[in-house]
Amino acid sequence: MLRSATHDPSMVTIEFANGSQSRFHAIWLRDNALDPETRAPGNGQRLITIGDIPATVSISAAEVANGDLNVTFQPEDKTVTFPASWLAEHVYDGAQDRQIGRIASGVTTWERGTDAPSGDWNEVQAYPAAKRNWLTAVAEYGFAKLTGGPTEPESLLKVANLFGYVRETNYGPYFEVRTEVNPTNLAYTGLGLQAHTDNPYRDPVPTLQILYCLENSAEGGDSIVVDGFRAAEKLRDQNPDGFALLAGYPARFEYKGSDGVCLQSRRPMIELSPDGELIGIRFNNRSSAPFVDVPFEKMEAYYAAYRQLAEIIDDPAMGVSFKLEPGESFIVDNTRVLHARLGYSGAGSRWLQGCYADKDGLLSTLAAMQMTQPEAAE
Amino acid sequence: MLRSATHDPSMVTIEFANGSQSRFHAIWLRDNALDPETRAPGNGQRLITIGDIPATVSISAAEVANGDLNVTFQPEDKTVTFPASWLAEHVYDGAQDRQIGRIASGVTTWERGTDAPSGDWNEVQAYPAAKRNWLTAVAEYGFAKLTGGPTEPESLLKVANLFGYVRETNYGPYFEVRTEVNPTNLAYTGLGLQAHTDNPYRDPVPTLQILYCLENSAEGGDSIVVDGFRAAEKLRDQNPDGFALLAGYPARFEYKGSDGVCLQSRRPMIELSPDGELIGIRFNNRSSAPFVDVPFEKMEAYYAAYRQLAEIIDDPAMGVSFKLEPGESFIVDNTRVLHARLGYSGAGSRWLQGCYADKDGLLSTLAAMQMTQPEAAE
Repeated sequence: MLRSATHDPSMVTIEFANGSQSRFHAIWLRDNALDPETRAPGNGQRLITIGDIPATVSISAAEVANGDLNVTFQPEDKTVTFPASWLAEHVYDGAQDRQIGRIASGVTTWERGTDAPSGDWNEVQAYPAAKRNWLTAVAEYGFAKLTGGPTEPESLLKVANLFGYVRETNYGPYFEVRTEVNPTNLAYTGLGLQAHTDNPYRDPVPTLQILYCLENSAEGGDSIVVDGFRAAEKLRDQNPDGFALLAGYPARFEYKGSDGVCLQSRRPMIELSPDGELIGIRFNNRSSAPFVDVPFEKMEAYYAAYRQLAEIIDDPAMGVSFKLEPGESFIVDNTRVLHARLGYSGAGSRWLQGCYADKDGLLSTLAAMQMTQPEAAE
Repeated sequence: MLRSATHDPSMVTIEFANGSQSRFHAIWLRDNALDPETRAPGNGQRLITIGDIPATVSISAAEVANGDLNVTFQPEDKTVTFPASWLAEHVYDGAQDRQIGRIASGVTTWERGTDAPSGDWNEVQAYPAAKRNWLTAVAEYGFAKLTGGPTEPESLLKVANLFGYVRETNYGPYFEVRTEVNPTNLAYTGLGLQAHTDNPYRDPVPTLQILYCLENSAEGGDSIVVDGFRAAEKLRDQNPDGFALLAGYPARFEYKGSDGVCLQSRRPMIELSPDGELIGIRFNNRSSAPFVDVPFEKMEAYYAAYRQLAEIIDDPAMGVSFKLEPGESFIVDNTRVLHARLGYSGAGSRWLQGCYADKDGLLSTLAAMQMTQPEAAE
């Protein structure tokens, strides 16, 4: 509900029922008008371009009616209604958080001591609320386990189908993670692997990874996940200049382990949105290529920050560890959460299948569930 | 070939045969050592982590032998050879281009008057050089046609298979672009569409799009492509402050035209690498959501810059146009090149199929071809 509205030709100032005030510009309101000539009623897509709006757009009237806002635009002499609730959701007049390296709302960072969020195979398929909780964990914590699944090969594809689509790559729709004689990738050995994000040499990077366990009777081979966003926060607090270096210059990553494959990227280890929100981590010792975009005079400080970030990531206080049983899997947000594995021995067997998928599908599925099943209705 | 090398504990200074000098830090050289204990001989992956390198790493000897560089590192007392050619390729000591909005090397921007680069269906399948030229055009110009292909449905999947992998989305592995009665997307109508990049509401955005023509006897429906990088360059030259606003704050994009789909992104219209290289354009009037991340006092200037960018994009002097015949298709780099279509009438038929794919596969295929078939060998 709105209490009042005042205007001049360039903007409207409204007062909400709680007394807070917000200003909206004429051009912004006109561009975002909700009438059926501006937005297609069925699919919600905008029917006009910015060029269809006169550059001289101005407001000739603004009034509260039934608690909502009616605005009349000139020279079109067009009146449009903006619901109070819609305006409240789209306020842009106020203090925006601009801290460099800040974490987006809805994201919670963590370290050791956190219980691994987990869903149950049968429940997430049967109950929307269980599925929503599982997807919410991926969105909020950047990883979640799924337990109680089948031990048939390719079951991981069914995990991806629960929320989206597999991203096929040169490794196939999915890949086998077990010891090979002539491995094209160190993942296909029994070596331990430092916590890393996958495929930073790929642009766009796969934003989700699923690792699904089919056999795991070998000694070792435990999985460890580390919150790269928490690690970045720690680096920012301990060494803000070092954080700025890792965010401010691209690293380089490369993989050419197979015939016909030569993947290269030029992306920073710590990725920020242009207004400073932390949006991605790339960290992988195996596929880091020589860094050549850092100015000479900053290279030693860059390396010191890289070392410090690695120490934070490798700190046992950071990792949440678990050993997957056959039929268990986990998803990681590969733009945020690093995964490691302990080395394992030749006795017994360890067989995982892995695949990539993308966050757009997962977050879309989750958002659509949240719209149709509000939390209060559970 | 190297002429000479001098060192102190923290760095080596080398002189190449052409007289140019470059410095390399001890930590950088040690991290990038090429010996088989540091890099796996088969797949080239690094076997050590940054933490495996002593923080006190220093250089105790550096000398030229057979034209290459031998460096001895302490405290490991480890000597490693760096080929002169490898050092020349990885120089980081010098003036790096830091201009904001600069275009990456290997990319050529264009406007109307450019002939659409094109490959022939049979030739790109038969001749590696033809395929390489066609892929190079996509890398350099951001788009290329392919002519003389079959008119069977799903032929576009064969185009994707030439270099990489389809990115499946909620629209399917591919989608039909023709008039629908109750369209979930304005693309599925006969309306003209302003030049746009596809799916900016998806994160990660599809980095390639293929549009394949199966029927096109309708009046109109011509395809137009516009180089978003050229448009961004023009905006930067005409209005650097406006360019900085579109690059400096995220826009918002959204699509929820179908049940179970709610795609949202928070990404800038002009995307720069952290060191200022132009790496992406997102521009789509239909799916722009209300911009709420721009500070109030900058919103009008942001909108003015958006309008100016749109005017540049819509300027007929920018677009390269063509009408696809059945069996013809084109690829666009969806992070750079916008595509538009003229409206078309109900008389006759227009049937295109579209799909998404990603640049990692295309650029990898191209890079691998360049390694195995150097240009001079053609």
